Amino acid sequence: MLSTPVQALSLVEIAQKTRDAARKSGCLSLGDRNEAIEAIAQALETTTPEIIKANQTDCTIAESENLATPLYNRLKLSETKLKATITGVRDVKQLPDPVGTIQIHRELDPDLILKRITCPLGVLGVIFEARPEALIQITSLAIKSGNGVILKGGKESINSCKTLVKVIRQGLEKTKIDPDVVQLLTTREEIGELLKLDNYVDLIIPRGSNSFVRYVQENTSIPVLGHADGICHLYIDKQADLDKAISIAVDSKTQYPAACNAIETLLIHQNIADIFLPKVAQALANYQVELRGDELSRKIINIPSATEEDWKTEYSDLILSIKIVPSLEDAITHINTYGSKHTDAIITEDSLAATIFLNQVDAAGVFHNCSTRFADGFRYGFGAEVGISTQKMPPRGPVGLEGLVTYKYQVVGNGHIVATYSGENAKPFTHQDL
Amino acid sequence: MLSTPVQALSLVEIAQKTRDAARKSGCLSLGDRNEAIEAIAQALETTTPEIIKANQTDCTIAESENLATPLYNRLKLSETKLKATITGVRDVKQLPDPVGTIQIHRELDPDLILKRITCPLGVLGVIFEARPEALIQITSLAIKSGNGVILKGGKESINSCKTLVKVIRQGLEKTKIDPDVVQLLTTREEIGELLKLDNYVDLIIPRGSNSFVRYVQENTSIPVLGHADGICHLYIDKQADLDKAISIAVDSKTQYPAACNAIETLLIHQNIADIFLPKVAQALANYQVELRGDELSRKIINIPSATEEDWKTEYSDLILSIKIVPSLEDAITHINTYGSKHTDAIITEDSLAATIFLNQVDAAGVFHNCSTRFADGFRYGFGAEVGISTQKMPPRGPVGLEGLVTYKYQVVGNGHIVATYSGENAKPFTHQDL
Repeated sequence: MLSTPVQALSLVEIAQKTRDAARKSGCLSLGDRNEAIEAIAQALETTTPEIIKANQTDCTIAESENLATPLYNRLKLSETKLKATITGVRDVKQLPDPVGTIQIHRELDPDLILKRITCPLGVLGVIFEARPEALIQITSLAIKSGNGVILKGGKESINSCKTLVKVIRQGLEKTKIDPDVVQLLTTREEIGELLKLDNYVDLIIPRGSNSFVRYVQENTSIPVLGHADGICHLYIDKQADLDKAISIAVDSKTQYPAACNAIETLLIHQNIADIFLPKVAQALANYQVELRGDELSRKIINIPSATEEDWKTEYSDLILSIKIVPSLEDAITHINTYGSKHTDAIITEDSLAATIFLNQVDAAGVFHNCSTRFADGFRYGFGAEVGISTQKMPPRGPVGLEGLVTYKYQVVGNGHIVATYSGENAKPFTHQDL
Repeated sequence: MLSTPVQALSLVEIAQKTRDAARKSGCLSLGDRNEAIEAIAQALETTTPEIIKANQTDCTIAESENLATPLYNRLKLSETKLKATITGVRDVKQLPDPVGTIQIHRELDPDLILKRITCPLGVLGVIFEARPEALIQITSLAIKSGNGVILKGGKESINSCKTLVKVIRQGLEKTKIDPDVVQLLTTREEIGELLKLDNYVDLIIPRGSNSFVRYVQENTSIPVLGHADGICHLYIDKQADLDKAISIAVDSKTQYPAACNAIETLLIHQNIADIFLPKVAQALANYQVELRGDELSRKIINIPSATEEDWKTEYSDLILSIKIVPSLEDAITHINTYGSKHTDAIITEDSLAATIFLNQVDAAGVFHNCSTRFADGFRYGFGAEVGISTQKMPPRGPVGLEGLVTYKYQVVGNGHIVATYSGENAKPFTHQDL
């Protein structure tokens, strides 16, 4: 502790400035917040050459350090990608205001009015990997929702991030929003410090590998929006339409295998396994999916053995484990044991089986006769996705702008005191919703 | 760790049984859950003598151990108190069903329907002090909301708790709800174990002293519903109606000083301090309130000095700290610095000042011209109060039954796959709310 007092103080100071600036921006009108978002879009447009140049510096260093290709591709910010991101910023401007929604409006007694109103959370701490456009996206969402944001990008994108934050803050200077609502951290050590700032930071949004998200979850008392694992299941019931089942299995596994909502395990009811398994195996083979099976499935097709470890693994790749189950209940038990509460689906024409599955599977998303890949904020119609949460407490599942706001109870009276409503001659409340 | 493997295993087994039983009860109809609540009420009625006798055993031990009077009073379960509690159980039966509410109902595309539906959280871990009736109340709320509950009462109430849980489980035996949804832990060591069961317990509700709640918050990764401190403020603006201000100050401080929503600090605008402070001091003196003031207030009335420590203290007693502030902004800054985000109020006839206060004070409850003591689930019309949360993320403020449920996204299709909605010829979603 003695070796870093200056560093620690400075981060607290940054956080304090962000919080103070955010408190003011949280009270501004939707028009003022939208103007600030437009100013950011324009600033990004007019400084595009400078941004691209900074990103090229990062890319040159990345090349010289032999950065892995997928990471390099995420780091690279082409003019086309930047243009699309600026369009995304203007899309955020079009989204409905998440702040100021009246959720409860109730007369407690004449002239004593309760309102529950949505309001900004305060300060978001966002830690992301290579992709510089994530910085732009999350900043526009933070400003839309009246929050401040402390950003920490990967070290490989440091020049891009510095330039982007400089440009965004310059854009904000001409608006009613204090540029201090947006801050950039530049050293890895600051992540640990950021996670301790529970007095200043209201929500942490980690965007990165499963192990990184788990590290964040385990090392902060600040609420974390996100999920570590996405172990999704597809269960093919004995009453499934097998054509639907094959098409959905292929889509759920292969449409984007690295996505968190892709399936990792296929569960098949034993009554249909003899017919269904060879067919689905053939369909998946066409997409180069590697299969691993339990003992029963290996009696039907010749595939390597799946171990206990397979049921717990998010492959994020073209690999699929297969298990044959004697009943719907066994499928549900397997899912509730090994699943990550993300998204699980049943294929069946039996509506009772579907109902039992949708009720008893403990996950943020429970699907019937459709692909698990639909579990996504854009596909749900939320306009923007802040993250996908696999926690039990709300916000859960794909989270839109509503995940960046909370609410307050406002009570307005005219001299009302509780003594009037207590004791022997207590006046009753009217509790009339308005 | 080596010394308690059997104990640890057994608590995990208990939690597993509770979770399995809760998953089934969570799928039962409202009628089935209400029947179970009625069965509990009847079981408590028919075994009243046995319950009172067990409580008398606890009281006798408490007397011999010289238990502090307030604790003894909370421990004592008279027949009248038990009757009132049973009435409360039947009140819970009357509450609207928190489970199965459809929050979003949207067509994503023809025959592809999204629903967001409320569902039980799963298993609640409830740790409470002496009051045996708290066990009855929380159990009926847990069953109403389709959850399981693991209860841990104070050691002074062990005989009462054992009898109550036995009676409740006997009552449930005649219903569709598995008695295993209700479990009792009996040793203090089990609290630490319970707090580690993040795979089995979905929400911890601590009911006890501030330091105990803080201990729980700091020693679990399970979400905690509750609050440690209740440091509430009343700010008297320069444009306050002084009669309202005095009456509300007296009510907020004295109506129930041990309550978390009672005020600890009175902030007074300097323009009115000369007139207002002597008057309010006199009114508070009539209720034996001890005052402590900053330098400016001590120039007006003769009271002891308030230190920095006073601004941070929840007295929970007839003590009030007083500070004179030069502006509304300074009042807000003081509250945002020292408050516990519970409930803070402004007294003013100036609607602009009120709006600024309600917007900028960062608390679950922000009040205008009424007593802070209204911050309460019953007064808000929630029917039952599970707890008051001072966290930023929802549920925040007084929490009713809605704090015991979460939601799931259900998507029902007819063979829909994401590939249809992706790529060059992507079909657009309709996103029509139904």
